[in-house]
Amino acid sequence: MTVREPLRPVLYDDARDLVRLLDQKALPAEERWLELSTADAVAAAIRDLTVRGAPAIGVAAAYALAVEARRGAGPERLRAAADLLARARPTAVNLAWAVRRMSARLGAPAADVLAEAHAIRDEDEAACRRIGALGAPLVPARARVLTHCNAGALATAGYGTALGVVRAAVESGNAISVFADETRPFLQGARLTAWELHRDGIPVTLLTDGMAGWLMARGEIGCVVVGADRIAANGDVANKIGTYALAVLAAHHRLPFYVAAPWSTVDLATPTGADIPIEERGADEVVMLAGQRIAPAGVPARYPAFDVTPAALVTAIVTERGVVRAPHAAGLATLASAR
Amino acid sequence: MTVREPLRPVLYDDARDLVRLLDQKALPAEERWLELSTADAVAAAIRDLTVRGAPAIGVAAAYALAVEARRGAGPERLRAAADLLARARPTAVNLAWAVRRMSARLGAPAADVLAEAHAIRDEDEAACRRIGALGAPLVPARARVLTHCNAGALATAGYGTALGVVRAAVESGNAISVFADETRPFLQGARLTAWELHRDGIPVTLLTDGMAGWLMARGEIGCVVVGADRIAANGDVANKIGTYALAVLAAHHRLPFYVAAPWSTVDLATPTGADIPIEERGADEVVMLAGQRIAPAGVPARYPAFDVTPAALVTAIVTERGVVRAPHAAGLATLASAR
Repeated sequence: MTVREPLRPVLYDDARDLVRLLDQKALPAEERWLELSTADAVAAAIRDLTVRGAPAIGVAAAYALAVEARRGAGPERLRAAADLLARARPTAVNLAWAVRRMSARLGAPAADVLAEAHAIRDEDEAACRRIGALGAPLVPARARVLTHCNAGALATAGYGTALGVVRAAVESGNAISVFADETRPFLQGARLTAWELHRDGIPVTLLTDGMAGWLMARGEIGCVVVGADRIAANGDVANKIGTYALAVLAAHHRLPFYVAAPWSTVDLATPTGADIPIEERGADEVVMLAGQRIAPAGVPARYPAFDVTPAALVTAIVTERGVVRAPHAAGLATLASAR
Repeated sequence: MTVREPLRPVLYDDARDLVRLLDQKALPAEERWLELSTADAVAAAIRDLTVRGAPAIGVAAAYALAVEARRGAGPERLRAAADLLARARPTAVNLAWAVRRMSARLGAPAADVLAEAHAIRDEDEAACRRIGALGAPLVPARARVLTHCNAGALATAGYGTALGVVRAAVESGNAISVFADETRPFLQGARLTAWELHRDGIPVTLLTDGMAGWLMARGEIGCVVVGADRIAANGDVANKIGTYALAVLAAHHRLPFYVAAPWSTVDLATPTGADIPIEERGADEVVMLAGQRIAPAGVPARYPAFDVTPAALVTAIVTERGVVRAPHAAGLATLASAR
């Protein structure tokens, strides 16, 4: 395996006070870094998916507040920025979580505000590595692991959640390979998951989103590992649209279905999946592909960006605090009080 | 609803002896007709999906043999052409069926060979209209009907199988609407189903392939209707990749799952779905999209073009000979001996 610098898609340049984002709309064709100096610009990058992935947008929002503080924003501007960032996207709770955590420090000296943002980034990457360590033993030997969307280094501070489990399994000597759903419409699987696994020398094969069920029926898939955008108190999981169908298919084929996410994704204030707001994005993101219209003009499209998988279909939730199985609500409550 | 000429994608120009194909690779951007004068050219058009859909490629193969006969091909050339056409694609049995039926007439005068091809075309469209009449009563009132790929006029001589059921339901006064899976990688749903339904004024909304399960869970889908490429003697159904996953999801949500196909798609010589050859197409058709590479170079992709849905997941098979429910094998055997 090629030894490469670990992939860290959201960074802060302390010397120049700039938020640095790897442009995920340009991948895999181009590895381009954006340097942003305002919360407005970071919020726009979150909205238009330049940076995406629940943990990663939390880190980006933290750095957005840090860059404002470091560049001299007053309390009113900081409060407005926090509000703007928290509302940039509705489903991933990590965004609101990071903004809330930062908001408690916005009265402190700018250096302390930045230190808090760095702590959020560092803790997220550490959480991913711990998730990997806890999740790797769950992956069957030499399994072909199915994943959906991108819950990798690119979706986090680094290392990844679902792909953190994959990386840790590989590092432990388990010669697994990965099937990546391309994940229409934004193609996170084809563009991002395939790119970061290929970069790290982990075998990955691309599927279109309709193929996984058939490969399960043929015995070609050993388990499913996905990330999450929000986990409700009862263990219901909001994640990228298409995840729910995979969970139903995994249950039908008696395959384990694992969700890997940092504790910041768990939202005990949301009782069930029915209470999670599901972002609806514009039909153009479905109908326009590589600058071309794939359907006739005038035909509408749906784009619920996420779906909710009921806890009953989730074999285990892997967080840095521990692994939760059914009954999920009790397991999450135990981990919540563990520290 | 706009009154339009019925859509007939495979025609024969008797005056000029040319096979006329609506170029399904150019839709929906352009409505372009190709005029072909050799079986080689038609076989190439079948292989590269210029014409696709199990019944439509059967009709195209019949006309390919007619154009050779009318242009003076001798017995040896006709036999070679029949062989080439039958092997153009492996899964849809209609192709072999049409070639076999034509082969019995290849010694006759060219006018009779052409008449047989016209009969195959006319009978297929009539079968579709009968399938529509038999299937329409199965569609719940004002249902939102999910379909996959294109089993429409474009996939047949005209009117369609799954979309024949949709058209007949609409014509009977049932104000249904259609959800069309875009159907990656070839996007038959986005490009073809959306185009032909929109053309006929039937409400259609586009989905990506990962969305249907979630819409079922939310109660937004009333039933599923798909076509077929081959139906085995036990009722197992080969159809476009992604169909099997929809059947599992429909069963999980207790929704009816209907398969609509002409009798020429039923292959009693194939005992079960496990005996149906599944075409594997090239990874480039997955990885290249609108001329752009969507995944990093060096990442492989899978492309089983079809999957097999076990009869147990099929609520009913609608053919022009009648509607078959479980036990499917007995029902198919009864219809086989009915004439």
